[in-house]
Amino acid sequence: MTKPIGRHTWAIAEGYIPPASTGSTREMTSHETVCILNAGDEDAHVEITVYFADREPAGPYRFTVGARRTRHLRFNEFADPEPVPKNTDFSSVIMSNVPIVVQHTRLDSRQPALALLSTIAYPLDQ
Amino acid sequence: MTKPIGRHTWAIAEGYIPPASTGSTREMTSHETVCILNAGDEDAHVEITVYFADREPAGPYRFTVGARRTRHLRFNEFADPEPVPKNTDFSSVIMSNVPIVVQHTRLDSRQPALALLSTIAYPLDQ
Amino acid sequence: MTKPIGRHTWAIAEGYIPPASTGSTREMTSHETVCILNAGDEDAHVEITVYFADREPAGPYRFTVGARRTRHLRFNEFADPEPVPKNTDFSSVIMSNVPIVVQHTRLDSRQPALALLSTIAYPLDQ
Amino acid sequence: MTKPIGRHTWAIAEGYIPPASTGSTREMTSHETVCILNAGDEDAHVEITVYFADREPAGPYRFTVGARRTRHLRFNEFADPEPVPKNTDFSSVIMSNVPIVVQHTRLDSRQPALALLSTIAYPLDQ
Repeated sequence: MTKPIGRHTWAIAEGYIPPASTGSTREMTSHETVCILNAGDEDAHVEITVYFADREPAGPYRFTVGARRTRHLRFNEFADPEPVPKNTDFSSVIMSNVPIVVQHTRLDSRQPALALLSTIAYPLDQ
Repeated sequence: MTKPIGRHTWAIAEGYIPPASTGSTREMTSHETVCILNAGDEDAHVEITVYFADREPAGPYRFTVGARRTRHLRFNEFADPEPVPKNTDFSSVIMSNVPIVVQHTRLDSRQPALALLSTIAYPLDQ
Repeated sequence: MTKPIGRHTWAIAEGYIPPASTGSTREMTSHETVCILNAGDEDAHVEITVYFADREPAGPYRFTVGARRTRHLRFNEFADPEPVPKNTDFSSVIMSNVPIVVQHTRLDSRQPALALLSTIAYPLDQ
Repeated sequence: MTKPIGRHTWAIAEGYIPPASTGSTREMTSHETVCILNAGDEDAHVEITVYFADREPAGPYRFTVGARRTRHLRFNEFADPEPVPKNTDFSSVIMSNVPIVVQHTRLDSRQPALALLSTIAYPLDQ
């Protein structure tokens, strides 16, 4: 499988970084993740824009996903141009120069029993 | 990203507001949410209709999602024209005058360990 | 909203009824649910076929979803032509004479802390 | 229902096998699952390729899903050509010679209260 697969643009309408965690390791820290698969033979240059309820969008946040590689990026680790605030509703749009596949996952460990959610992102271009 | 993205009409077949919560804050109260992203430069005027098992639909519930903004609306806070009953199965249809992206999330805190679910809504128009 | 929306045929590749529950009420009993929205003005006659790993499919299970109504059907309550076994992997295909929207949800209460999953079903006809 | 339904190629951008479990049975062991429905009358020959963050892809892993059957395959039980490492981010692409429907589910039992996620995979060919 070396041909590029997926779409250039995706949207995730849900976004929220839980404000607390019970775990102390990175593995069990509450996180909001965008998983990106680049199955093609060319590096993917990805730009993520984050939308809020009451201010102009933040970003773009820039990442490279190598050829035939996947990256699971955590919004709570975004830093440049600015961190994504915790305990705040947001949405995101993911744009790439080559086709990619995008999925959204949250691990919420505010309570000792963690909770998970995941959904395929919404593909915007045909 | 200022061009409108998404669809005008979406459906969420699942809907349910848990009848209880263990949390006392808004953050940890059980809730059923519809997340709406309006990435375009024009305000989105949104109408939500709620369907039930044994009565005619309720609504429309009307909301505005500003240009380049997101809103995460909680069904358990809907009031006009009528509240959405708890512990009752429902579905919803979301219609907008401009393209939007819609995702469905539930936080269930009936038990001390919360549970989460989420899925992209179903896009109805091409 | 009285025009029919959705598709005639849907598939859910995941299916599993947890073999136990900690709750004693119907609300907290572990369940596997198919949520069906019929937003049109004509009753939907729905047939569900259940697929297994090691035997021929079961069904069809027949249900009516009234005009402008939703039904959240639990696989663990299916009875005719035969019950769906617990603790067994299955898949399902949902066919309707009019367009519907289908979503899949599980509540797992094998442990005191319940877990949830949900996803839109896969629409098969254009 | 004997006509083949679905697509030939699917992608799951999220993949992760939790490194621990609290359950001792197969049922309650943390697992990452790809659920495959073959509703047609011909056996499906499926090849799964697994993508990582920092090395070339693994696979293909080969499976047969019989006519009118479903299989819920666990990545943590993949063995040939190599096991899928735990506690490692991955993605997967699923290819079949006949149309299938694919869904992704995780059961995480690292803590006594299990957590679940599920989403339809992303269909890649029309």
